Amino acid sequence: DIAQRLYALAECEKKLQNKVVMITAGPTVEAIDPVRYISNHSSGKMGYALARAAQLEGAEVRLVSGPVSLRDPHGVTTVRVTSAKQMFDYVKSNIADVDVFIGCAAVADYTPVEVASQKIKKNDDEMTLKLKRNPDILAWVGEQQATRFVVGFAAESQSLKEFALKKLQKKKLDLICANDISQQGLGFNSDNNQLLLLYRDGQEKLLDIATKDALAADIMQEIGEHLKQRS
Amino acid sequence: DIAQRLYALAECEKKLQNKVVMITAGPTVEAIDPVRYISNHSSGKMGYALARAAQLEGAEVRLVSGPVSLRDPHGVTTVRVTSAKQMFDYVKSNIADVDVFIGCAAVADYTPVEVASQKIKKNDDEMTLKLKRNPDILAWVGEQQATRFVVGFAAESQSLKEFALKKLQKKKLDLICANDISQQGLGFNSDNNQLLLLYRDGQEKLLDIATKDALAADIMQEIGEHLKQRS
Repeated sequence: DIAQRLYALAECEKKLQNKVVMITAGPTVEAIDPVRYISNHSSGKMGYALARAAQLEGAEVRLVSGPVSLRDPHGVTTVRVTSAKQMFDYVKSNIADVDVFIGCAAVADYTPVEVASQKIKKNDDEMTLKLKRNPDILAWVGEQQATRFVVGFAAESQSLKEFALKKLQKKKLDLICANDISQQGLGFNSDNNQLLLLYRDGQEKLLDIATKDALAADIMQEIGEHLKQRS
Repeated sequence: DIAQRLYALAECEKKLQNKVVMITAGPTVEAIDPVRYISNHSSGKMGYALARAAQLEGAEVRLVSGPVSLRDPHGVTTVRVTSAKQMFDYVKSNIADVDVFIGCAAVADYTPVEVASQKIKKNDDEMTLKLKRNPDILAWVGEQQATRFVVGFAAESQSLKEFALKKLQKKKLDLICANDISQQGLGFNSDNNQLLLLYRDGQEKLLDIATKDALAADIMQEIGEHLKQRS
């Protein structure tokens, strides 16, 4: 009947049908002691918008999120974690069948060498915090020998394109979405953003200022197109 | 008429009528660079509950809050800040006529010695972060020669009463509200808490597990009683 044919038609237009998409979102929180921590600015809004957009395109979506004050997106498997290590553990355990990986989380680069189990009592005027490098989740995914499409984000306060391209190559990504955090009212806690998309093959595309939901929909369209060209 | 007399009666029972109450709430966020920061766990829920409770008791309330995802309480002057320095600046500029000061914010003890204006690019396996002591807002208020009633909070993971009493004396507080953060499901991001109230004169009172709103109402009653005894 007509309804079924319309439904089938709508299904056809879904660009990520039968694809598994994994998205990391939000910040990670690295404990110094039970009270204090190191983190990165990230509202999680972009990652959650991507998860919703991927779900609308028919994908099976796994969202692994650091601490944010956002609701779990409808129809998306959402897992909440705190530290970079916890995020990495989830990614490693659940990536085998993932077709598209999007590293949108602001993962802390460094974590305290020692985590105090009790609240640190300090009376010194100065204090030195020793940090060690966290696992680079996105680079680890890029290193995997897989046909997976790997997407990263770069938030830069200067030399946007240069730093983003460096990250694209170093982490063996297929696509990097770069945004300039020196621009007021965009990125971070804002609902709007502007993104420069840079592909491994040298293509680039500017997604002009729009809501994160609109940008997420565009990115999913782009990824869907690239997957189609590949197959 | 009856309505006016009922209203007058209700007014009479308000314990903080004509009092100015200043409350600090939430965490402070200390920038490492435009992306990274150090902070403390604090949802701000207790401080916001205190602000609402003080307003209900008839006080003029000034709430100075670090970054939290809570709405400004109705009828309360709410000022949003980021760093401990900004919070301290607000407190210093607006404390002259304050009758009751409640330091409920989880102010970062330390802040980076240098804040990088650009995102730090690091590739070392280890990194050392140099921190310097932040101003102690609560101790500064306690030091002021004033008839002001000064209240602090102590979140401790061990030796609760001992550390809280030390803080009460050191910061010259009239009252400290201590909670044990080693107990699961209480404090921090929870809606519930349990508080041990310790007064300068040696009195103590346990406020058993309850919602933060209920605890805040009890604390305001307590403060109102103490102000009455004083005058």
